[in-house]
Amino acid sequence: MTYKHTVQYYETDKMGITHHSNYIRWMEEARVDFLKQIGWSYEKLEADGVISPVTAIDCRYKASTTFPDEITIAVSVAEYRGVRLKFRYEMTDAAGKTVFEATSEHCFLDRSGRIVRPERELPKLHECLVSLASE
Amino acid sequence: MTYKHTVQYYETDKMGITHHSNYIRWMEEARVDFLKQIGWSYEKLEADGVISPVTAIDCRYKASTTFPDEITIAVSVAEYRGVRLKFRYEMTDAAGKTVFEATSEHCFLDRSGRIVRPERELPKLHECLVSLASE
Amino acid sequence: MTYKHTVQYYETDKMGITHHSNYIRWMEEARVDFLKQIGWSYEKLEADGVISPVTAIDCRYKASTTFPDEITIAVSVAEYRGVRLKFRYEMTDAAGKTVFEATSEHCFLDRSGRIVRPERELPKLHECLVSLASE
Amino acid sequence: MTYKHTVQYYETDKMGITHHSNYIRWMEEARVDFLKQIGWSYEKLEADGVISPVTAIDCRYKASTTFPDEITIAVSVAEYRGVRLKFRYEMTDAAGKTVFEATSEHCFLDRSGRIVRPERELPKLHECLVSLASE
Repeated sequence: MTYKHTVQYYETDKMGITHHSNYIRWMEEARVDFLKQIGWSYEKLEADGVISPVTAIDCRYKASTTFPDEITIAVSVAEYRGVRLKFRYEMTDAAGKTVFEATSEHCFLDRSGRIVRPERELPKLHECLVSLASE
Repeated sequence: MTYKHTVQYYETDKMGITHHSNYIRWMEEARVDFLKQIGWSYEKLEADGVISPVTAIDCRYKASTTFPDEITIAVSVAEYRGVRLKFRYEMTDAAGKTVFEATSEHCFLDRSGRIVRPERELPKLHECLVSLASE
Repeated sequence: MTYKHTVQYYETDKMGITHHSNYIRWMEEARVDFLKQIGWSYEKLEADGVISPVTAIDCRYKASTTFPDEITIAVSVAEYRGVRLKFRYEMTDAAGKTVFEATSEHCFLDRSGRIVRPERELPKLHECLVSLASE
Repeated sequence: MTYKHTVQYYETDKMGITHHSNYIRWMEEARVDFLKQIGWSYEKLEADGVISPVTAIDCRYKASTTFPDEITIAVSVAEYRGVRLKFRYEMTDAAGKTVFEATSEHCFLDRSGRIVRPERELPKLHECLVSLASE
């Protein structure tokens, strides 16, 4: 699944390129869109009392980008075995060149901060993630 | 009362100067510090169930700044007559030159979004603001 | 002319609503799009050696918004008499309710920081802005 | 070497905690301070025509933080063998609990985007980094 983000002027820095912190925000934008597309939007999860904080990110910056580049972000489920969910991201510029590669890891928590196991508490989400992880 | 903020690299843009949106964030930093200094920190207000959203801002950019300038922010209560609270800000660079002037307006709300009148519900805060507004 | 922005999760704050500083960034997004639509993109201006920094903003927050609201931003030229350019913005939510109103003022500078008068140095831009300001 | 950052209100999100993208910005704040302390500030490097973009980051989020927590950031040179420079970061809260661990990797480029080898072109910086990497 892909998501598009146009680099904004306010996302550049005095080097003249996109500040590296913004890619982490675009990962979130693309992940939010991905979860919405598969029927498990953040709003739906939050309405179910479940949040999914980021526990780790690992990012490789391959080439710089700048305003007003259009970035295409491919997102997929890299790994899911019942507790931790790992996404993979590949960002490409308009010419198709890879500019950024990353993974992010997430857990599921309820409102009191207790770990939620989708297999037991959100079995449909669990099935969906298992299926996506095996693609 | 003054507060200091050092311009961060990530706050610059490709013009080589501080992106204008960041001054609004520094106004918040300085206001948070001001309220803490007068004994009415955001945490205390939020613990009392009161939030104070921004209802208006009015900003004049006088001169550009950039990384790693140290900005001094003078904050004062410009106006308070019982409902709306108005702060005034003046930002100066290390040489004492005014780089930015602004005001922000705020109301007080409870958790359900209802208007809170400090005079009735937070009389000590009310007195404090009346006194600061007359300085 | 209108532009759409979907509120991102990272644009919210612990009040549960969009942080007020982000509207200033959306004003830029909408202005960038507006200038592109009328044939005077930032890139084109910068290629001509002209930058257009913000000299003032004046914002009224009418109603809060939050993730993942879709905001429609109407932009128009409010005033232009040869030196300063003033834009007007009105942001509405999906239900058509006005959530934010603002103006921003800009000047034109060359790379050395000298004031550029479009009438003399960019006559086609000047004509275009005069025409838009009279609508 | 340590650097302190107070979590700002605008750095929180609707989960009520610091948005994860901000830690990447604090890494930069701490790195900028570190380089300044060892006599190789960004300004000095940029005046020498050298920029040092981020090529990779690897972050573990150990515990959440929120406004107005004071975070202590320990920075050190994790690795340097002549081309790539790797920093290590550990962030702790006021109670001394580790909340975040990360590394970042950087290269050195000149204004035309060509790789700069400090050993040849900035021998004093090279010596300094070799010495810090062996600590």
